[in-house]
Amino acid sequence: MAVAGTPSLAPEGRLAIIAGRGQLPVYLAEAARRAGEQPLILALKNEADQRFEGFDVVRVGIGDLAQIQSLLRVGGIVRVVMSGGVSRRPEWRDIKPTFKTLIKIPSVVRTLMSSGDDAVLQMVIKLIEAMGCHVIGAQEIAPGLLAKTGVLGSVVPGDDDLRDIEKAVEAAEMLGRLDIGQGAVCVGGRVVALEGVEGTDQMLQRVAELRAAGRISSRRRGVLVKLCKPQQDMRADLPTIGLSTLENARKAGLAGIAVEAGRALVLDETQLVAAADAADMFVTGIDLGLEGRGAA
Amino acid sequence: MAVAGTPSLAPEGRLAIIAGRGQLPVYLAEAARRAGEQPLILALKNEADQRFEGFDVVRVGIGDLAQIQSLLRVGGIVRVVMSGGVSRRPEWRDIKPTFKTLIKIPSVVRTLMSSGDDAVLQMVIKLIEAMGCHVIGAQEIAPGLLAKTGVLGSVVPGDDDLRDIEKAVEAAEMLGRLDIGQGAVCVGGRVVALEGVEGTDQMLQRVAELRAAGRISSRRRGVLVKLCKPQQDMRADLPTIGLSTLENARKAGLAGIAVEAGRALVLDETQLVAAADAADMFVTGIDLGLEGRGAA
Repeated sequence: MAVAGTPSLAPEGRLAIIAGRGQLPVYLAEAARRAGEQPLILALKNEADQRFEGFDVVRVGIGDLAQIQSLLRVGGIVRVVMSGGVSRRPEWRDIKPTFKTLIKIPSVVRTLMSSGDDAVLQMVIKLIEAMGCHVIGAQEIAPGLLAKTGVLGSVVPGDDDLRDIEKAVEAAEMLGRLDIGQGAVCVGGRVVALEGVEGTDQMLQRVAELRAAGRISSRRRGVLVKLCKPQQDMRADLPTIGLSTLENARKAGLAGIAVEAGRALVLDETQLVAAADAADMFVTGIDLGLEGRGAA
Repeated sequence: MAVAGTPSLAPEGRLAIIAGRGQLPVYLAEAARRAGEQPLILALKNEADQRFEGFDVVRVGIGDLAQIQSLLRVGGIVRVVMSGGVSRRPEWRDIKPTFKTLIKIPSVVRTLMSSGDDAVLQMVIKLIEAMGCHVIGAQEIAPGLLAKTGVLGSVVPGDDDLRDIEKAVEAAEMLGRLDIGQGAVCVGGRVVALEGVEGTDQMLQRVAELRAAGRISSRRRGVLVKLCKPQQDMRADLPTIGLSTLENARKAGLAGIAVEAGRALVLDETQLVAAADAADMFVTGIDLGLEGRGAA
């Protein structure tokens, strides 16, 4: 744990990456290193599932505010990025407050037990900023991960796909407004699944099962749409797709995936596009603009 | 198959019950018999899962419009009620049109493949009415099944439950407006699952799994809300709860179930209430009134 005194080359002060599940934290760490930084990784216990070899890594309990605060202070951290999935929220007994946060604990626990992801992440951002750090978005470390507008591979969505995208966007926007989830699947003009706490991959597995049971038409392929919540802070939990999303969408028989351009992250884009092309699937960044966003 | 010539005692003409999955068709058949009728049961192949002993029963393919039309005609049927679940829509090759419906088949298939349940049921009602029958709602045969306003058992929802009901109502209304589904689960103010094609029981199983995995707070119980879609025809697919709904809600750790009074069916009410009381769960009929309905 070579935490203390490690100098940062970045003029803005040292970066910490709070790392949950999946590959995103690794990509951010690598991107930061390429930019000349030496990020400190705070790998969340029971969530972070990647090795961060060659980086400074400390494992922290997800509710251990006291340890997180002392690490940020000792590490000379000025900027913090939150990345990766958290499948299990801390229970009240997992929360270890700092002296300063003690008074806030009842409301922290209430938010954890009663609010959507967006409200919880807003609270986490506020707690970290109260520790004197600046919370930034993954796209500020690795802007290349942001979804671009338009089709990524060589497969282009057809008219039926565009209609499915439109209906799934409508459902996903409503999900987002209610702070429930980010994803919706539409097959042949019919929204068949909406993402709740289970997450995108489990929702796609459900679609695959319903399809195998004949409860979703086998003659229409359908789409997955993932959108940012309208009120979502761009510094937390941007919709993310990667190879496993594509693989699960393929198993669900879908024709492709649409994400919101500029407000979603695409991991492993080169391999993702190659896999999508090989599976005759499209991956596209859609521009909802102000029109779609203002519908609330 | 004593179909032809069986006289009906009801002045309005003989009743046919199109029977899908579950107990509802049996209850309707029994209610009709108590009212002096001799209903003809058209039990849908691969869906109807009850014995209809002592009733006239014919098994029909779900898309076999030609057979259904001739049975309705030969049976002297004037009124038709549709009841029970249909988990699998017919494929285009299952549709056996009548001469009169031949021209409508392309649009029938399109609706089957591309629309929400409500649109499909609207179409089925129109097809049956074009055969010269009058389609009526289950509540016209068995008005006692309609959910009443207020708490059914001895357990009363608390303040947290009322708040969960309110949030789940908001989500379920939106689901209904988009013709996606009828049910939503809210735990501690957070909507955790929405019903798509999988149906209520599978959604509740998902909640139980997410709860067991620690992904939903174990300290808040939560509620299931089932609502009629705002635009829903009261003659088809009213939200229904029964013993299996209660049992699945119990396994999901929920505090209770709320359905829309006057627009949902409660099966086996006596046993349901006893089981709910035993499990310390509430079952309540909520009155959304015009206010809640007009929110769209």
